[in-house]
Amino acid sequence: MRLITYTHNDAPDRLGAQLDDRVVDLAALAGHAGTELPADLLSFIRSGSAALDAARELLSGDPAGWPAGAVHPLAEVELCAPLRPGKVVGVGLNYVEHVAESSRTLDTAKELPDRPVLFGKPATAITGPGRPILHNADLTTQLDWECELAVVIGRTAFRVSEADAWDHIFGYSIINDISARDQRRSGQWFFSKGQDSYAPFGPAVVTADAVGDPMALDLSLRVNDVIKQKSNTRHMLFPIARLIADITSGMTLEPGDVIATGSPSGVGAGMVPPEFLQPGDLVEATIEGIGTLSNPVIDAR
Amino acid sequence: MRLITYTHNDAPDRLGAQLDDRVVDLAALAGHAGTELPADLLSFIRSGSAALDAARELLSGDPAGWPAGAVHPLAEVELCAPLRPGKVVGVGLNYVEHVAESSRTLDTAKELPDRPVLFGKPATAITGPGRPILHNADLTTQLDWECELAVVIGRTAFRVSEADAWDHIFGYSIINDISARDQRRSGQWFFSKGQDSYAPFGPAVVTADAVGDPMALDLSLRVNDVIKQKSNTRHMLFPIARLIADITSGMTLEPGDVIATGSPSGVGAGMVPPEFLQPGDLVEATIEGIGTLSNPVIDAR
Repeated sequence: MRLITYTHNDAPDRLGAQLDDRVVDLAALAGHAGTELPADLLSFIRSGSAALDAARELLSGDPAGWPAGAVHPLAEVELCAPLRPGKVVGVGLNYVEHVAESSRTLDTAKELPDRPVLFGKPATAITGPGRPILHNADLTTQLDWECELAVVIGRTAFRVSEADAWDHIFGYSIINDISARDQRRSGQWFFSKGQDSYAPFGPAVVTADAVGDPMALDLSLRVNDVIKQKSNTRHMLFPIARLIADITSGMTLEPGDVIATGSPSGVGAGMVPPEFLQPGDLVEATIEGIGTLSNPVIDAR
Repeated sequence: MRLITYTHNDAPDRLGAQLDDRVVDLAALAGHAGTELPADLLSFIRSGSAALDAARELLSGDPAGWPAGAVHPLAEVELCAPLRPGKVVGVGLNYVEHVAESSRTLDTAKELPDRPVLFGKPATAITGPGRPILHNADLTTQLDWECELAVVIGRTAFRVSEADAWDHIFGYSIINDISARDQRRSGQWFFSKGQDSYAPFGPAVVTADAVGDPMALDLSLRVNDVIKQKSNTRHMLFPIARLIADITSGMTLEPGDVIATGSPSGVGAGMVPPEFLQPGDLVEATIEGIGTLSNPVIDAR
């Protein structure tokens, strides 16, 4: 199932299931059928498999019986970030070729890390599809992109084995891990990667059953229609199950938390000469089976 | 006003005002007076000065008229973390002598940082007064302490000047910024400082009007009754107003967010030879005008 958060005619955000070019308001559909489903994705995830099963059952019915107010053409809604995560755990240096380009240009080690390199992005950094990435030239001249597979946690996870890790995943999405490379602080990435709008997220969360093999998804990123990154999730250094086992060895992952699983090579800092985002640019991050997350860069001084 | 979050007889958490050795349930007191106040601190902070003024008015009345169920002896309640912050922004290397000890033992630069060194701790790391700090010997042999003044944000802050910063502070508390020094990942502190129980928080939030000059508070930390850290907030390299101006130059601070303003010298890693926390230890972080945050260390393998 392909889940989106949207607004229609400026009404409050709603949770929808996307069926081709239509959006179905799941709470409204449930209400019409005399049952209940949450109207937001975080509550839906917290409701567990019962909510997912109920939604599947409702969507398998005859669309002719759906109330008119519960179905919108996709073109008539505005997409939002799927949810506001409790935390976003970022993974650095998780694709081999990116480790090499990063060591050339970003003062990181040349050797492959022997443990996942973890960092945090705050919820205030999250922004939605189509929303602007804020370029503040007073703060940075090195605004950079990173297309990443986002793992959305479905069930609370603490000390989970690699074998059990998959049971704790709700679905997948895209995060563009934006960095102001010149705002690292004594090497710490939090401020360089954690500013407002530095975590575009979406356009949808695709449930785990519908995404195919998450370790074999093409991902790519374009700036102004020029391809900058192109890889496949099979090239992750630490695969998804290992990341979940490692993080939860000490840190609880909660429903709605997101792991941004790292970026392949092709970031702006690694170009010769370096290329960085400027106001007016359009960044498009694409992952197979999930879609494209597009965000314009604007002057936000 | 001294605000605490507590449970009484295992009932759900409540917001209380502490008056000497009594705790007054603010929502219950308001209900008795025919008005309303939130029953949790985050909602109380979000309600702004109106809630604070109403609470002050209620507490200035004659205690003889307060309903019995709204007042508890402090000794009969169990304290909890004051709230669950949306984010905790940590500040590294913010006391001059700690910069020196850290450069000797923790691979950080010898020079004073020219900008605040910012990092994140997730909300899942928060734990309450008296609650255990989890020592997992399978993960770390270098569990360390850091007593820090916690600034609790009261009003949404983005691009706030140093002069206006004070208007955005609700109050002050204590965070013990626990680190597993051997769990830094390619230099990133998130996993070493972000594990469950690595952010003891409390015992109270003291409102800004009641704390005196926050830039002149004695702070100290004891392990098993032996003083390890002893300093004063006046020795911060980047003072509170500068931290708020710097963080909000790019990152929105929201009501209930917390800034952990950095630790003075005297951390375990800086001792000769190094000293680290072990199961059975008791860590007590004290800040003038706020109180003492005590946490036992337990074996959590």
